[in-house]
Amino acid sequence: MKFHPEEAFSVVTSRIRFHRRTPPGSAPGTLVSVPDAPPPVIRVTGFDSEALEEDVVASAAEALAWRERHSTIWISVEGVGDADTVRELGEGLGLHRLALEDVVHVHQRAKLEPYADHIYVVCQMPEAGGQIETQQLSLFVGPDFVVSFQERPTASFEPIRDRLRAGRGRIRSSGPDYLAYALLDAVVDHYFPVLESLGERLETLEERVVLQPDREVMRGIHEVKRDLLLLRRAVWPLRDALGALYRDPLEVVSAETRPFLRDCHDHAFQILDLLETYREVASGLMDVYLSSLGNRTNEIMKVLTMFAAIFIPLTFIAGVYGMNFDPAESAWNMPEIGWRFGYPFALAVMALVAGGMLLYFRRKGWLGGR
Amino acid sequence: MKFHPEEAFSVVTSRIRFHRRTPPGSAPGTLVSVPDAPPPVIRVTGFDSEALEEDVVASAAEALAWRERHSTIWISVEGVGDADTVRELGEGLGLHRLALEDVVHVHQRAKLEPYADHIYVVCQMPEAGGQIETQQLSLFVGPDFVVSFQERPTASFEPIRDRLRAGRGRIRSSGPDYLAYALLDAVVDHYFPVLESLGERLETLEERVVLQPDREVMRGIHEVKRDLLLLRRAVWPLRDALGALYRDPLEVVSAETRPFLRDCHDHAFQILDLLETYREVASGLMDVYLSSLGNRTNEIMKVLTMFAAIFIPLTFIAGVYGMNFDPAESAWNMPEIGWRFGYPFALAVMALVAGGMLLYFRRKGWLGGR
Amino acid sequence: MKFHPEEAFSVVTSRIRFHRRTPPGSAPGTLVSVPDAPPPVIRVTGFDSEALEEDVVASAAEALAWRERHSTIWISVEGVGDADTVRELGEGLGLHRLALEDVVHVHQRAKLEPYADHIYVVCQMPEAGGQIETQQLSLFVGPDFVVSFQERPTASFEPIRDRLRAGRGRIRSSGPDYLAYALLDAVVDHYFPVLESLGERLETLEERVVLQPDREVMRGIHEVKRDLLLLRRAVWPLRDALGALYRDPLEVVSAETRPFLRDCHDHAFQILDLLETYREVASGLMDVYLSSLGNRTNEIMKVLTMFAAIFIPLTFIAGVYGMNFDPAESAWNMPEIGWRFGYPFALAVMALVAGGMLLYFRRKGWLGGR
Amino acid sequence: MKFHPEEAFSVVTSRIRFHRRTPPGSAPGTLVSVPDAPPPVIRVTGFDSEALEEDVVASAAEALAWRERHSTIWISVEGVGDADTVRELGEGLGLHRLALEDVVHVHQRAKLEPYADHIYVVCQMPEAGGQIETQQLSLFVGPDFVVSFQERPTASFEPIRDRLRAGRGRIRSSGPDYLAYALLDAVVDHYFPVLESLGERLETLEERVVLQPDREVMRGIHEVKRDLLLLRRAVWPLRDALGALYRDPLEVVSAETRPFLRDCHDHAFQILDLLETYREVASGLMDVYLSSLGNRTNEIMKVLTMFAAIFIPLTFIAGVYGMNFDPAESAWNMPEIGWRFGYPFALAVMALVAGGMLLYFRRKGWLGGR
Amino acid sequence: MKFHPEEAFSVVTSRIRFHRRTPPGSAPGTLVSVPDAPPPVIRVTGFDSEALEEDVVASAAEALAWRERHSTIWISVEGVGDADTVRELGEGLGLHRLALEDVVHVHQRAKLEPYADHIYVVCQMPEAGGQIETQQLSLFVGPDFVVSFQERPTASFEPIRDRLRAGRGRIRSSGPDYLAYALLDAVVDHYFPVLESLGERLETLEERVVLQPDREVMRGIHEVKRDLLLLRRAVWPLRDALGALYRDPLEVVSAETRPFLRDCHDHAFQILDLLETYREVASGLMDVYLSSLGNRTNEIMKVLTMFAAIFIPLTFIAGVYGMNFDPAESAWNMPEIGWRFGYPFALAVMALVAGGMLLYFRRKGWLGGR
Repeated sequence: MKFHPEEAFSVVTSRIRFHRRTPPGSAPGTLVSVPDAPPPVIRVTGFDSEALEEDVVASAAEALAWRERHSTIWISVEGVGDADTVRELGEGLGLHRLALEDVVHVHQRAKLEPYADHIYVVCQMPEAGGQIETQQLSLFVGPDFVVSFQERPTASFEPIRDRLRAGRGRIRSSGPDYLAYALLDAVVDHYFPVLESLGERLETLEERVVLQPDREVMRGIHEVKRDLLLLRRAVWPLRDALGALYRDPLEVVSAETRPFLRDCHDHAFQILDLLETYREVASGLMDVYLSSLGNRTNEIMKVLTMFAAIFIPLTFIAGVYGMNFDPAESAWNMPEIGWRFGYPFALAVMALVAGGMLLYFRRKGWLGGR
Repeated sequence: MKFHPEEAFSVVTSRIRFHRRTPPGSAPGTLVSVPDAPPPVIRVTGFDSEALEEDVVASAAEALAWRERHSTIWISVEGVGDADTVRELGEGLGLHRLALEDVVHVHQRAKLEPYADHIYVVCQMPEAGGQIETQQLSLFVGPDFVVSFQERPTASFEPIRDRLRAGRGRIRSSGPDYLAYALLDAVVDHYFPVLESLGERLETLEERVVLQPDREVMRGIHEVKRDLLLLRRAVWPLRDALGALYRDPLEVVSAETRPFLRDCHDHAFQILDLLETYREVASGLMDVYLSSLGNRTNEIMKVLTMFAAIFIPLTFIAGVYGMNFDPAESAWNMPEIGWRFGYPFALAVMALVAGGMLLYFRRKGWLGGR
Repeated sequence: MKFHPEEAFSVVTSRIRFHRRTPPGSAPGTLVSVPDAPPPVIRVTGFDSEALEEDVVASAAEALAWRERHSTIWISVEGVGDADTVRELGEGLGLHRLALEDVVHVHQRAKLEPYADHIYVVCQMPEAGGQIETQQLSLFVGPDFVVSFQERPTASFEPIRDRLRAGRGRIRSSGPDYLAYALLDAVVDHYFPVLESLGERLETLEERVVLQPDREVMRGIHEVKRDLLLLRRAVWPLRDALGALYRDPLEVVSAETRPFLRDCHDHAFQILDLLETYREVASGLMDVYLSSLGNRTNEIMKVLTMFAAIFIPLTFIAGVYGMNFDPAESAWNMPEIGWRFGYPFALAVMALVAGGMLLYFRRKGWLGGR
Repeated sequence: MKFHPEEAFSVVTSRIRFHRRTPPGSAPGTLVSVPDAPPPVIRVTGFDSEALEEDVVASAAEALAWRERHSTIWISVEGVGDADTVRELGEGLGLHRLALEDVVHVHQRAKLEPYADHIYVVCQMPEAGGQIETQQLSLFVGPDFVVSFQERPTASFEPIRDRLRAGRGRIRSSGPDYLAYALLDAVVDHYFPVLESLGERLETLEERVVLQPDREVMRGIHEVKRDLLLLRRAVWPLRDALGALYRDPLEVVSAETRPFLRDCHDHAFQILDLLETYREVASGLMDVYLSSLGNRTNEIMKVLTMFAAIFIPLTFIAGVYGMNFDPAESAWNMPEIGWRFGYPFALAVMALVAGGMLLYFRRKGWLGGR
Repeated sequence: MKFHPEEAFSVVTSRIRFHRRTPPGSAPGTLVSVPDAPPPVIRVTGFDSEALEEDVVASAAEALAWRERHSTIWISVEGVGDADTVRELGEGLGLHRLALEDVVHVHQRAKLEPYADHIYVVCQMPEAGGQIETQQLSLFVGPDFVVSFQERPTASFEPIRDRLRAGRGRIRSSGPDYLAYALLDAVVDHYFPVLESLGERLETLEERVVLQPDREVMRGIHEVKRDLLLLRRAVWPLRDALGALYRDPLEVVSAETRPFLRDCHDHAFQILDLLETYREVASGLMDVYLSSLGNRTNEIMKVLTMFAAIFIPLTFIAGVYGMNFDPAESAWNMPEIGWRFGYPFALAVMALVAGGMLLYFRRKGWLGGR
């Protein structure tokens, strides 16, 4: 397998950078539209334990009108590039200016912010399909509404819509807090496939680091480590927010929903736990990789040394008998070359030297199985 | 000893992966059966200080019926693949839906969850026999019952059954809380043989890393480190759960049982303590391994350098007297080859050079004992 | 790209050193002027929701006189080298001696110090333009004044002056606490471009560490790590000070301003979070760099070993046939050199040996794509 | 100095392993005798501020009888292998079953356990003489008794017996809590010589790692690190137990003794502090060792490279003039060998090449002082 | 610059060792004189806001007598080797026995110990002049006295004496608590020059690690790391003691002095902060050093490989034409040596091979700027 430097670029970039939209020193609560952003899709669902109505509406105003007709409504906005929609919804429902700013400025740390009559929860939600990419989910939960903002359409909440439509379970009969729980639980649950795929990558690397410790393995380990970092950065504050959600005395969270939130908090904990384990395994793999390299260097060195140590003396012997001392001048000058068995004798000496070397290396354990 | 790459695969896989059974977005409390799971074995024991009755029953309903007949019953279910059994028991005893979901979804972090009239404790229990493999034990403790769910049959609880049958000690006269303690204490105790076997592996590695630092040692250290990680992940939350169990004001835990739980908590602490020590020893071994590799590289290099440095000059001298300058043309052209003792002189020069080199290397300390 | 040792000096020095102006054992609250410091520029802004007046004044006394005329004044001092100005302002407004000492001794850790009727906040503010360099900002907030001291003129607060002048938003109608918030928020916001530039440096290094792991990459990683350290040292206590500011019951901070301070505290948290992530990425890169080096050593060794292993045996064979045994003396003495195809035979043997070696190395995987 | 592999074994083993005597699942409080354990020595001391009586008694019952005769008794048991003695003493004084189990199962973490009318303190005590070996000391302190259990006889408590006999100081006039303090203080004090010997080992290693970085140094560092780990594992919980002892409202500890316990706690703190410093020094030494190895590799490589780079070109030149091109055939064929000064010319070229190489290496700084 | 092994010894020893004067098991509060210690110098200063008197007195008794004559006295003892002086002062002022023991046993961790009517503060004070060496300062602060014990005379407190004499500022009009603050503040301030000199050493190392990564750099980094460790060990508990001093409700500390103590505590915090930064920089330098070594190995290897790869083939070619196959026997035997341009042809082949190699290495980037 070949290493493609040109791919390296595309893989490593653009995940750890940070961008902010408003210039430093702007007034707080400034909402700026993204130029050329697609118009947001506003999907409203009104329901109580009896009935359910759902539709895509054209404007924030229209969505707000549903509030009259249903005991609980869920306004789901896909696309946060249009500042007007966010502002209108915020004003219509009395949402706090600073929270609305966070909706528009994606890349927030997950957090829970309690306001007088509603709470604001923001977190990063993994894209469906085991990818590390996340998008921001902002939730406002009030006495009779849930407003969710997400950056892009996602299939992650379809099962919840299905449960709403089916009218099964608590989801229809409980209030907006349970719906918010269901959404957050889906977010947490979507981290599991991501973890599974990371676990698989780690296993593949664990095999390869022993059998074939090449440069790709090193890059693989580095990338897994960075992905784990990114995930941890997303999940750690999410766990804290969920913890606050079930422990803090918030008015919009009913006592019946709290055990479910605790369960969800447990799942987030479990994810973090696995992330930590994976991180330590990945760090251990880097050590194994480094020592595999050292091993390999040793093996190459052994091959070199054996060749050198066997042939250099032989070449020397051959060199000696290649000297031009003149046996004719003196009986002391290389008498061997006039011997009857001079040549076989020289070859025999060479064979002996070579054999001795081989024996020496066998003793040192450089030959054989290892 | 040879290194078998094909074994590497089987050793490193399948321990650190994570699998969840329900798809993200499912309603909480969903109990899903595992296809082709063997039917669970339900073993019921009813006892008070006077009498004891035990039997394997066919269904959850039958087990529940025993509750009438005994002051304390212990329903032990081996195999959690059948959702119906779990659900029936749960409904019969009023156990919480979310806890039942955790029973079925093995790989939970150990935790204690207090509910209105019962508590739920879940933890990972090592298989008997010093293996790192664990299975999940779920315990429900109510005013007059203990329900234990385990994934597979195990011999770990036989001594407890024996103590129950013998009617010795507190176990018969105390309530379900003491029985739960006895079960948890057995779980904690089963970690000790696992630790012992890890300690032995570490010792073997500690010897070998100095005497024979090969690739298997590296893998051994990596595996011990990973096993320690897995153990820590199992024991850390178990200790927390045990701590909560003896400290929190839980109704089902009597004051008499608390000192025993504290003792059990101490044991879990001791295990963690040893785990940490082992982890640091293992990390230290990795350092020793890396420096052993460096040492070995140095030694190989020394051999190579000595051979090269001794024979290359000799070969050069031989080469000089192999040149074809014609002494007949000029008295300046290699007069040595016409000398009477030219050849012995050349050999003597070579011997001197070689001797000088050996002396030089002896001075540098590259020869001799080290 | 060449490495310039003479630049190394200028890059690495003068950032991590620490200097104090007063000798140990001096009385506390001693204010010492910096010799040859430029005179400070005192800029006063008086405002309420109706009107605004701003001017540069010549002396501290003149600035204090504005206090009579406006409900809120902001005295902004650029340059802290002149002890007299600091002392006069301090005495005029009743500021604490120890706080004034900190104004003059730049390089303070960020902190909040509550005094009887005013608070003192000090922090390090990044220079505009994505540089790591910081200067110290000292803020005194009283019931009707904000005094800010900075070391050098900066464009960072221009947007706030603009908002004051425009009379938009809360900034004119709220008290000095909101103005202080706006200044601190600008400070925090100016860390984001610094982070962005660090993120870009990290990405560049991440690419290069794989493609071209030379000495400059190593220095780059080391410098990023140090810059991250310096930033963390500035932001960590700033976050704590902001936390205290919105949580502690301080008289000068109104309830309306607290949510804004919490938001600002969140931003500082986010910066720290990113800093930690960057730090771990940078540490990971150092590992990758080290293993890249190891890889490179291996590759160089392979080239050497292959050359040596192929040509040393060939040279030996050539040496053998260069020996001067005299075939005339005996039929045993190098009969090959008299063979009809002796020379082609010798060449063929050499070709075979070389081919065998190449095959051997191909088997070992040293040739080919990687 | 030579490295003896066969010693390695004896040095590294048997310190980090853990053994438990009762099988998992046993009833708590089970006391098991060690087969072939020597009979315990029971030494009783009864005293008040007036009188003192001490003797070795034959049985637990006899020791308990002394309780009648003295206001304070100290029963010191050397050897915990005999379960009966432990049980009898425990029953006679009303000691808790679980604590007695810990007495017999040595290798406990240090801890303080308060019971209704007595406290139980267990800790690891270093053997006298600067060794790392420890034995377990168990102390029961009641209103009128101290019972101490130790594994083996030790001279560590002789000074305390001497102070008791001399009747000097508080030790005779204060109650059992002060005696317990004196024993614990002696335990803590005995860690200091151990630390001193570790400090000396570290210093020796610190010298050698620079001057002579061989394999023994590596082992030495590894062993010091492990010994520090073992010590920390013993002292850390001891400090906690001492902290609880002087802070917790325990009935058997009088207000007068508390400052002494705080002092003892301070000493334990100081030991931990030194241990941490030593640990970091030892870790730093490992880094120094690794880089010493790298340095050494570089030096060996330099020697090799210089030899190769100087002699390989020379040998090549000699080889060229060893070629057999026939100058008789053509004036182009090696005319040099017919020159009058051909040989001296060739030697001069060689000398030039060698000199150039030497100059080149001097420029690179490979020759000379370093 | 040459490395002198014999210096290594003197540099590395005697800083990290620990010595205790009393044998384990001694009674607490035992004061032991150091044999041959110089007699202590007792310097007494009595003052109130009006007057000041200072003198060196001959004995502890004489010093105590001053207490009658002044509202505040400061007894400064230089030299703690004489147990009698310490004991007399302690008894005269009612100081606690255990605190007196700590005065004599230098090398205490910094701490604050509150007693009924006085407090005891002990800390390590750097010697003047930027050295790492410290001596122990013990302070007793009572309602009308400060007693300071130091091991050796020092110039560190001269500025405070000057301020006392001048009668400037608060120092004369405030009580003993302010004097104690002034002394502690001087101690803290004396750490700053030490830090500065460490910062300079780090910078020098930072330059050299890139330009000249030799063994001295490694030792330098190791020593800086150890010195940072020692400093941290001195400052960390000092900060805690100062924190307790300004926060705890101590009777001898007046409300007016508390803000000054908080300021002093802040300075200690700042020192620790810098120490941590320096520690991380030093650790980073060790990484840079290790990778510099790796780089250097690579460069040496490249030189070797290039020489070998260029000359070994050439030598082989020369060897081929040095073979003695007899062209007279057969037209197949080395016809080249009879060619007219055989020799130039051979040289040309060699030049081609050498050129090809150079081209190959240039392609690999081993030649040129880097």
